[in-house]
Formats: sequence, C-alpha cells, structure tokens
Amino acid sequence: MTPDVTLRTATPADYDRIAAVLDDWWGRPVSHGLPRLFLDHFHATSTVAEAGGDLAGFLVGFLSPSLPDAAYIHFVGVHPRLRGAGLARGLYERFFALAAADGRTVVRAVTAPVNAPSIAFHTALGFTVTAPLAGYDGPGDVKVRFERNLARA
Amino acid sequence: MTPDVTLRTATPADYDRIAAVLDDWWGRPVSHGLPRLFLDHFHATSTVAEAGGDLAGFLVGFLSPSLPDAAYIHFVGVHPRLRGAGLARGLYERFFALAAADGRTVVRAVTAPVNAPSIAFHTALGFTVTAPLAGYDGPGDVKVRFERNLARA
Repeated sequence: MTPDVTLRTATPADYDRIAAVLDDWWGRPVSHGLPRLFLDHFHATSTVAEAGGDLAGFLVGFLSPSLPDAAYIHFVGVHPRLRGAGLARGLYERFFALAAADGRTVVRAVTAPVNAPSIAFHTALGFTVTAPLAGYDGPGDVKVRFERNLARA
Repeated sequence: MTPDVTLRTATPADYDRIAAVLDDWWGRPVSHGLPRLFLDHFHATSTVAEAGGDLAGFLVGFLSPSLPDAAYIHFVGVHPRLRGAGLARGLYERFFALAAADGRTVVRAVTAPVNAPSIAFHTALGFTVTAPLAGYDGPGDVKVRFERNLARA
C-alpha cells in the first residue's frame, strides 16, 4: 500500500463522496448498485481510504445477519490513479480481520463473468470462483461467485 | 388480509421466484434493485406470503447491523390480483413485531417521490415522510424517506 493512504471505518456521511465518483472510477454507470442504505446500515463494517483528505478508495461489506458464519463484500473501489499499489488488498485484509474477529469463517462476493481483472484479483487473494451462474441477480443476469475461507487465513 | 394467505419467514431459495415476478408486478424494470444478496443475507427478517402454494407477496427487510435502534424495509411486493386486501399491511406488521422484539425503535424505508400509492400507504401505516431528497441514492436520484417509531405502535 502507498504509505500516505490511511484507512478508517466508514460513516453514513461518506455515501455522497463515494456515490459522486462511482461512475467515473468504473468508467460506466454502476451507481445504481450502491444505494445509500449500504452506508447507512453497514458503515461499521465498511472502510474508507483517504490520501491527503481525498477519497482514495472504499470497501462496503457486512457481516451477514442471517448466515452467522458469513460475511459479504458488496462494492470495492480504488481511485484510478492509485491502482496497482496494494490498496484494494489492504481494504480486503482489513475486512477479513474484522469478519474473523466476529467469528465469521467465510467471505463471499460476486462479479460479472466478463470482469477478468476482478476475477484475477480475487483469485490472487485466495478466493475460489464459480462457473458463471445464469439468473443470479434476476432473469438475464449472470454472475460468478467468490468465496474465501477465513480459517485458511 | 385474505384468509387463505399464509406468511412465513423467507429462505435464500425464495429469491428466484421473487426475482421472476418483480418486473411484472411493478409494471416496469425494478429487478436490479433486488440482487440475490438481500435474500441470502436478510432472509431471517424477510417474509414470503403464499396463497395455494403460489407467491402472493413478500417483504425484504433487515435489522440494521450498524444502527442498533433501526430496522430497514427494502422491497415489498404484493401480487397485482391480491392488492387492496390488507396483505401489505400484514407484511409490515409482521416486520414491525420482529423488529420490536429485537429492541429496534425505528423503521425506515424510501421510495421515489412520484410513487404516490407508496406514500399514501406508508402514511396510513403511521410513517412520516420527508420532502424529496435530491441525490439520495446517487447523483440525479431523488427519494422520499419514510420513518415510523415502533415505540408508538
């Protein structure tokens, strides 16, 4: 990780600055996938990365209320100019630590099958990846699912 | 509520039948707003209504992990042929009861300002409603927020 980036627990107020950069950082419209409820209700298990007071990255994740063993990572972003420096890995490792501290044993996430960089990144972090799952997030949608056992950490 | 409708706690497996009817029940594309994660991780606080084995309605809600006083209702649907019979009210009342049993004191939800039936319904159920909030779920989005104090129930 670059030395001047600091990580801290997110707050509900971080939503607006995250929402403001989403489509730019992804290069396509993705902000519909992160409604405000995710920061309102999962901020305590989400992380904001800052560099010089500016938003450098973020991870939105939660400890599953219904599956006591599971934690889920919903959205992770890194500023385009800060990619490749280990910041995403740092965000994930912070989430793994807080999930493990709560007794969670598995972390899951999903992405589109065409998102090769995400699949490579998750594989490098020790996630397994499924074959494409048709109808995953509704009719016509296809996703791959990532899973990482925290006990192996 | 119609007498032959039964309510039960949702399971992750209910996602596919819910996702299959969403756009039809709403009359417009809304399924992107309910990814599978909501049933995977919040099924224990969500409800499925069935009539003769068919899906009659559902409520997807959760107890906020980060806000200990709050519960949140994300998506509620009733089969078009079963509307006006009190089923939605029954789904909400079941959620109020389980949230109150967990010590939650406030329930929140949001909708688009143009959704007059939703605003009328929530008002009748005792929710307050805000003025339209610009940028609520990202740049360009506008929502109104509902809030109901469970202590007044």
